[in-house]
Order: sequence, then C-alpha cells, then structure tokens
Amino acid sequence: MLASKLYCPTLREIPAEAEVISHKYMLKAGMIRKNAGGIYTFLPLGRRVVRKIENIVRQEMDASGAQEIMMPIVQPADIWHESGRWNAYGPEMFKLKDRHNNNYCLGPTHEELITTLVRNELRSYKQMPLTLYQMQNKYRDEIRPRFGLMRSREFVMKDAYSFDVDEEGLHANYENMYNAYTRIFTRCGLNFKPVQADSGQIGGNRTHEFMALAAAGEADVVSCTVCNYAANIEKAIPKTLELAHDTEKEAELIATPNCATIEELVNLLHISIEKTIKAVAFTIDGKKTVLCMVRGDHEVNDVAVQRIVGGNDIQPATEEELKVHGLQPGYMSPINADIPENETFFILVDPTAMNISNGVTGANKHGYHYINVNPKRDFKNMTVATIRLITEADVCPACGAPIEIVHGIEVGQVFELGTKYSEALHATFLDQNGKAKPYVMGCYGVGVTRTMAAVIEQFNDDNGIIWPVSIAPYEAAIIPVSTKDASMVEIAATLYHTLCQHHVDVILDDRNERAGVKFNDADLIGYPVRITIGKKSIAEHTVEIKTRRTGAEEVIRIENAAARIQEILETLRAENK
Amino acid sequence: MLASKLYCPTLREIPAEAEVISHKYMLKAGMIRKNAGGIYTFLPLGRRVVRKIENIVRQEMDASGAQEIMMPIVQPADIWHESGRWNAYGPEMFKLKDRHNNNYCLGPTHEELITTLVRNELRSYKQMPLTLYQMQNKYRDEIRPRFGLMRSREFVMKDAYSFDVDEEGLHANYENMYNAYTRIFTRCGLNFKPVQADSGQIGGNRTHEFMALAAAGEADVVSCTVCNYAANIEKAIPKTLELAHDTEKEAELIATPNCATIEELVNLLHISIEKTIKAVAFTIDGKKTVLCMVRGDHEVNDVAVQRIVGGNDIQPATEEELKVHGLQPGYMSPINADIPENETFFILVDPTAMNISNGVTGANKHGYHYINVNPKRDFKNMTVATIRLITEADVCPACGAPIEIVHGIEVGQVFELGTKYSEALHATFLDQNGKAKPYVMGCYGVGVTRTMAAVIEQFNDDNGIIWPVSIAPYEAAIIPVSTKDASMVEIAATLYHTLCQHHVDVILDDRNERAGVKFNDADLIGYPVRITIGKKSIAEHTVEIKTRRTGAEEVIRIENAAARIQEILETLRAENK
Repeated sequence: MLASKLYCPTLREIPAEAEVISHKYMLKAGMIRKNAGGIYTFLPLGRRVVRKIENIVRQEMDASGAQEIMMPIVQPADIWHESGRWNAYGPEMFKLKDRHNNNYCLGPTHEELITTLVRNELRSYKQMPLTLYQMQNKYRDEIRPRFGLMRSREFVMKDAYSFDVDEEGLHANYENMYNAYTRIFTRCGLNFKPVQADSGQIGGNRTHEFMALAAAGEADVVSCTVCNYAANIEKAIPKTLELAHDTEKEAELIATPNCATIEELVNLLHISIEKTIKAVAFTIDGKKTVLCMVRGDHEVNDVAVQRIVGGNDIQPATEEELKVHGLQPGYMSPINADIPENETFFILVDPTAMNISNGVTGANKHGYHYINVNPKRDFKNMTVATIRLITEADVCPACGAPIEIVHGIEVGQVFELGTKYSEALHATFLDQNGKAKPYVMGCYGVGVTRTMAAVIEQFNDDNGIIWPVSIAPYEAAIIPVSTKDASMVEIAATLYHTLCQHHVDVILDDRNERAGVKFNDADLIGYPVRITIGKKSIAEHTVEIKTRRTGAEEVIRIENAAARIQEILETLRAENK
Repeated sequence: MLASKLYCPTLREIPAEAEVISHKYMLKAGMIRKNAGGIYTFLPLGRRVVRKIENIVRQEMDASGAQEIMMPIVQPADIWHESGRWNAYGPEMFKLKDRHNNNYCLGPTHEELITTLVRNELRSYKQMPLTLYQMQNKYRDEIRPRFGLMRSREFVMKDAYSFDVDEEGLHANYENMYNAYTRIFTRCGLNFKPVQADSGQIGGNRTHEFMALAAAGEADVVSCTVCNYAANIEKAIPKTLELAHDTEKEAELIATPNCATIEELVNLLHISIEKTIKAVAFTIDGKKTVLCMVRGDHEVNDVAVQRIVGGNDIQPATEEELKVHGLQPGYMSPINADIPENETFFILVDPTAMNISNGVTGANKHGYHYINVNPKRDFKNMTVATIRLITEADVCPACGAPIEIVHGIEVGQVFELGTKYSEALHATFLDQNGKAKPYVMGCYGVGVTRTMAAVIEQFNDDNGIIWPVSIAPYEAAIIPVSTKDASMVEIAATLYHTLCQHHVDVILDDRNERAGVKFNDADLIGYPVRITIGKKSIAEHTVEIKTRRTGAEEVIRIENAAARIQEILETLRAENK
C-alpha cells in the first residue's frame, strides 16, 4: 500500500467525548469515525485490523471443528415469544416492524434463532456433537453507549452454539471452545485471563469470561495471588467473616438526626463501621421487593441477589415501593417493617452481617436507629445468604490466600446453557433408544471489535498504538525522509517491492510530508516495524530499522535489509503463538 | 471436510413456495433455510459459496485500488433528511427507533452515509481519486419477497463509492469499476452482459447493469443481433414507426358497448390493432396525473414516463383521480377530458401513436369510442415523447438490425452519480485554485447473494447444481461406495489427505449411506469433480473421476489420481479467468 493513496484522515484534536485511550487513538489515527451514539464506521486501517482478528477467530473456529453459517440480523418476533424473551430482554433490544406490521428485532444474540433453525432437522444423536458459528454485527441499545468500541450499540461478534446429546458431551465441547478462545486471544497478542462468571440472565450452568486486563475495563476481576482461582467479582463468593462475639445487650431506639448514610451514623455515634448493618432494597421484574442487609463497610452484589431470588430485571426499589412496606429510606432494616409473608417480599441477610453482636441498624422511623441489635435475635423471616461483594480485604474463596482485584474488559465468554432453550423451544433429537430428548447446548462469544479496543488499551504509549504484529493494520512501514530525493525514493521503492514479493504486509509512506509528520503518524498508527530511508542510505548504503514495541533501533546495509526485516517480524510473530 | 461431520440437512420434498430452480436447489441441498419472508440463514455449504464470491469481489476491488471500509447498517435519520430521501425512499426502507426515540433506518444503500462520512475530511483535490467499498448486509422491505435469494429483504451486497474532482475523473473511475465487475462475474463463472440502464430514482447520469441471462430473471434485456448494443428494456428507446398515411376522415362518436379493452374493441369493430390508440394513466408522488397514449399493441414504459415528468413514486392512477378530470376508465383519451393547463396534468403521446391516421380511441363516455381519430389534429396540449416499451418487432436503436429480448437477473450495477449527493449534502473539496467544489461521485454495487442464485439459475440439470469450480462449496468429493470395506476406506482417506496437502478444497463422503444416496447428494450439491472409490479400486487399483459439468468419466490408476484431479481442476479453473 502507498500511504499517498490510503484514506486515513488523522486528527490533531481529539473529540472531548473520547474518554479512554483506545477510543482516542482510533479516532486520532483515522481508524474509526462515529455516525451516531455507539455506532461507528471502520475506515481502511480499522477495517484491516478487524479483518485480521476475524481471520484469526475463523481459523481457530474451523480448526476446532465448528462450521461457519450466516444467520439473519433481522429476527422474527415469534421465536422470541416462544422462548419468553421478547418482553424479558428489556430495552436493550432494538425492535422494528415491517410494512405488513409484523414485529422483528435486530439480533442481540441468536439462541432462539439457531435453536429453531436446527430443530426438526438435527434429529438424531448420530448428528451430534455439532457446533455452528457466525461472524456478524450484533445490536444492543445501550442506555449509555461509551468508550468507543468497548460499549457500542452495533458491534462485530463471533457467536457459536454447540449441540450435544448429554452433559458429558457439552463439557467436552466447552473445553474445546475454551481452548480455542485461549488460542484466539493469545494470537491476538492480548494479556488475558479466563475467569469464572455468573450465568445471569442468559441462564445455564458453567461459564467463563475471557478478560483482557486493563485499567479502562468496566469489569472487576478477582484473582488469587497464590492459586489459579480467578472470577468475575459478581461470581466470587467471599468467605463469611468470624467476628468477636460480645454479650448481647438489649436493643434500644435512639435518635440519630440527619444520619441517612452509614458515614454520618459512624461519625455521630463514634462507633466502628464494622458494627453497622446497612440495608439496600431492590425490585425484581416489578413484582418482588428484596431487602438486603450487609455489614456497613460491605457492598451488595446484585447479581448474587438475582441468582438467589430469580427473575430477569433487577432495579433499585423506589421510595414509593418501600413505604408500602413501612420501610423508611435512610433508616431501613427488617425491624418494625410491615412485611408480608409471601413470595412478593424477601429479606436477605449476609452471613457476616448475621455475625455482628450489638450492632446498629435503621428503625424505619426518620431520624432513628436501633443500637445493640443482634440479627439472629432481632431480625425475623429472613434468608441468610452471601450477598456481599468480595473486597481486597477478603481471602481467596478457593485457598484462603490473599487476593487482588483488577479491572478487565470482557472480550469473550463461554457458556454451558444446558437445555434451557431447547426445552423452551421444544427442540429435541432421538437418542440411541429412539427417545426424544432436548439438545444439551452451549454458546460461545468473541467480541471482535471490542478485542480491537482491548488490545489498544493494553498496548500503547504517549505516541500512539503499539500493535501486536498479528493484527497490525500493516506489519511494517517504509519511510523515505524526503520524497524530493530521487535516490531515497528509489531505495524505498525497491525495498517495498522486495518485501511485497515476500508477502510482508508493508506500507510505503510516499507522501510529500516532512519526515517528522511521517514518523509521528507511524508511531500513532502503531506499525510494529519502521524502516527509515535517509541520508545515510545514500552515503553509507544503510537503512534504520526500528521496532515499535521495544524501541530497539538497528542500522543494516540495504542489501541485507529485507532479510533482517523478515527476521524481526518472525520474532514478533512468534510472541503471539 | 468429512461429510459425516458436515451440517447439511438435505430435503426430499421441496417447499411449495420455491418457484425458481435456484431457490429449490438451495433448500433441497441444505444450503439455505428461511427464517421469515425474504430472510434466510446460510448453512455451512451456502456460507462457503457466499464466502468464495465475497473473496473474489474483495480481491478484484483491492486490485482496482478501492479500499475496504465497514459502515454501519443502522443509519441515523438526520442524514436522510438532509438528502431529502427519508420520505422519498418509500416503504421499502425499514425504519426503527432507539430507546431515546431517535429515528434510524436499516441501510438500503449508503450514499448519504458515505458522503457525510468523508465531507470535512476529504478536503483537497490531492486526496482524489478515492474509492471506498464495503461488503455488508443490505435491507429492502420488498412488498413481495420471492424467488429465494433473488428478491430477498436481507441480502449481502458489495457497495463502492468513488470521489473525483471532475467528470473526467469519474469517467475513468467508472471504466475502472466496469472492468473490475467484468472480471468479478467472469471469475464467478457467470454468463452475463453489461447493459445500459436508466438511472431512475437514485439519480445521476450514465449507468450499466450487469445482467446474468436466465429465464427466471425479472428484468428484460434488449440486445442487438448484429452490433454490441445491449440495454435494460426500460432504457431502450425504440425507433418511431412510420405508418401508412391515409386521407383524414372526420372523427365520429360510435357506441362500443362492453369494449373496455383493446382486444374487445378490435373484435367488435373488426379493425387492425395497429389502428387503436390506448390510454394508460399514472399518478406521480400523489400530485401529478399523467395520461399516456400509445398504439394499442404497445405497452407504456413507466420508467420513461417518470424520466420525462420527474418525481419519485409512480403509481397507476385511481378511478377517483381520473374522474376528477372527466376521464372514463376503459374509454379514456385526451378528447372530451377536462384537463387543467398547469403542472399537475400531463398528456404524453408516443410518436408512433401520433403517426396513426383515422385511428380509434376512447371518448371518455362509458361504452363509446371515436373512430377516424387523427392525433395531430384531434389531441390538444400534449407532449410527444417516446414512452412505449421496445418489442422484438422493433429494430436496434443503435444500428437498425433485428434485436432480441431475453430475461436477465441484475447482479451488479455501476452508476455515475455526479454531484447529486455531494450538492444535497454540501460535501465539498478545495480544487487547485482553492475553490470549494462538490465531489463528483459514482456508486457501484454487486449483489453477492443474488450472484449465488444467478449462477445456479444458469448452471443446473435435473439432478442438481453444477457449480463453477471458483465458487463451489468444495471443489471435489471423494466417495467410497462402502464405508464397511476397510480397503476402500483406506484408499479414500489416503487420497483425501493427499489432496488436502495440495490445497484442494475436498470433501470425503465417509457417511455410512448407500452409494446411490451419496452419488445423488454429490450431484445435487454440485461438486465439480467426483471421485469414486469402488470395487475396481481394490481389484484393479483404479479410481473413477467424473466431471460434473461435462459428465466426462475417466478411470485412473490410484497413484496417478491426485495429479490428474489437480489437472482437471486447473482446467476448470481456467474456464473462469
């Protein structure tokens, strides 16, 4: 490619809305442009990166035995009604009507579509195991799209679905995909970690998220400093803390004016925060109210709450809903509340909160708390379950060693769905005994465009992007420092053609620009290897080769340059294998 | 690939809705499945064909100097308002809203998006010529989706857009794309013809359609039997016929009960159809009424009418609209009509109809016609313009030789848009004198999935599809007639591995099925080369190689088989270069 022909409109000023480094650099380097909130165009350099990632994903999927298909983006509503998710999916689903007033959605995922696609045709146990995948745009109408490609509304995803006759087959398929994903992200050059995750709304059993570790990540990843335990923070179940057990005193109502927060309460009463019991309330599917009690210094894990109570949509409860049950915002607890003993109200108490003796909690009266509260004695009708988020003060749930919590970007996920969708959609096969059974399914996703962003979050410096060679838009850039010098131009052109002949993915910066501009652009765009043709190339017959990642520079005689460049690229390629 | 692993659910019964051969065979061979009207999934074999076509298109686009990008499918409404097409595009556009109630469409085409994408960044004449392309799903909400992939609502298209500083640059770019398209369809093995077409609603100047000639085609293609003239039937302007000129008689009103059609009129009056003058009326954009007069044996070309009158949406006029102007359906003509002399009503008379002497036409009174009508004398306020469709009785508009009219499937189109969109969207660059000018644009489309259907329409027999080797799902199939015979299995496996090593795209039919089933499936799916491993392979150490297209069979010693198969494939590949 000749840089003079490349459509690559670099920017001097970065739009203010770009908050994270990947978004900034992709805009600045002319790789993407925004068309609407969370909706982007990939310009030539960006498209090349996406294509290289797609090719890696496709190669590894094919090698794993999965077969590529192409399902529609526009999906009919009826299959979503069948599974019960048309309404359950919520406002993230883009819906539309055709000219005949039929309902459709833009596929946020394809479980319904693939299950109804193969039912009636995937009839026999002999046809399984089967894994089908596609590479396609997906749609989620995020309430607040942001961070460029990290949380967009239209994005490229590889999604795969496996069909097995039993759980054992599913486990094997899951391992197979887990291994393929490990190869994919390794080949993309990512620093990543597979972590246990909660299966949440999509249903099912075992699931891992593949997390790219990066400060800009929106997920929190818990990992052990000793064993190989790693989990999404919502999935990690902290151990219950054993607390000092004091002699129980009698509970006492005291005035605590202007103490609607734990901090205010601690300051007023001069007590340790570990003596306070905090209340947080949720509504699930608009039908169930859940009052959650954790120790004052802990946070409630809403995913755990939802896992325990069930349902699809968990939201903070409104003041109105709370007042119905005599719950006073800022001063809530199960004490003095008017709580029905049925399936519309749940009190969940974290076991660490249960262990508090003579603690402080709300009295459901504005400006009042109880002191000397002992939950085991004073709370009624509650369910004890671990509902708090793990913290860095906790120990590893697996081995008890210290843990750390870091940010991560979810770039992939593998799921054991089991029979959730095949049962809902009556999709069965005949087993060896001629008996109809639902498929045992798995689903597996790679965020292709998000992976591009994650790589940039991990590999950059003040000058720009530092691409792994496997997904760089071009592997090498040749820069003649002056295009007015015919000798330089000729040396550059000869080297360019030699590298092209050896299938090096190379760009020649033949633009009539100052050398500084070309060097800056090369650093910004992040070509792994830069070759400079300057005055020395004429005087001393040498070129300078610089490796972007290490900054290493070397001067090589022109006749040896092509071979040396290929050697350097081979070394770089080997890093991502 | 092993056939035992391939997900390829073939059908015995073809769904009744499949009317054309490509639709039937793609369903039967397990290549596509319908998810909703005009919306399909491509199963593994179908996906492979699409991918091979995509790769050919991509290679030729890249070779032509075009650069690949990826624009969004979901497009914001504002850019369509800017160009004035949000309402003008009509009900074929899928529209939707996001959770914030903003309007979007699913891109039926991308002129608005690409023009607003590059405006402000494609600033200088130095950055041009520039051609950008993408490969993507497109959406058109057809009122009656049919013929499988030939007229679907979601389909894969390659669309390209060129930007030039002047008409001369555009012409060069147009030629460049025209040549690339010629290579693309040649490589896909299609029998095609580039024909002149009408630019219609999309606007602009010169345009050619690439037509795959096939009986199932919905378009009519006119071509000369002598010179190289070829045009879409709506574009072909027939020569005016010189008619015998009789002495003019006086027009006379006669009763013609039950003669609302030309056929009834001819039968009643025992006259030649060439003496009748037919009326057809349209409404354009709901604002203009157009009364069209052609000779009774001719048909009106509504595209020509729209070209002459202007406007976006042409529809047959309703009885109500006609009666306002005193026009009596079945008995219409300009005579006795109540026609306003302004821009809301047009009378168009075809010049051949003008040449009729003493003809017959409607009297705008139920059950009455005029005889001895001489349009030049009797019609008022009309515009004379060629508005009839050409017929096989006409001569070549270019050279006067006989023509033929055949059916075609439009698989590609190249367009000179000029400045239509750049002016509407205020998208300008600075020329050499620093003066702002609108881009001179072209747009170019290939129907990727429609090309797949067109190839099948051209290449099939009673047994199934006959793929050109360049886009066949697999180039060759190896069939051991019995998988219970260990020797046959071994010979087949060895040959399979040898061919794989030589990068032949081969499938081994290792299914435990009867030989007849495997042969039938191979013919149905349409693998270009079939290799049979049977009893002779053991007794005489030979295999049978059959070429699908020619039916030629040859028997080759096993040790020479791999080389011979590659030779045959090379010969087949050479046919599509």
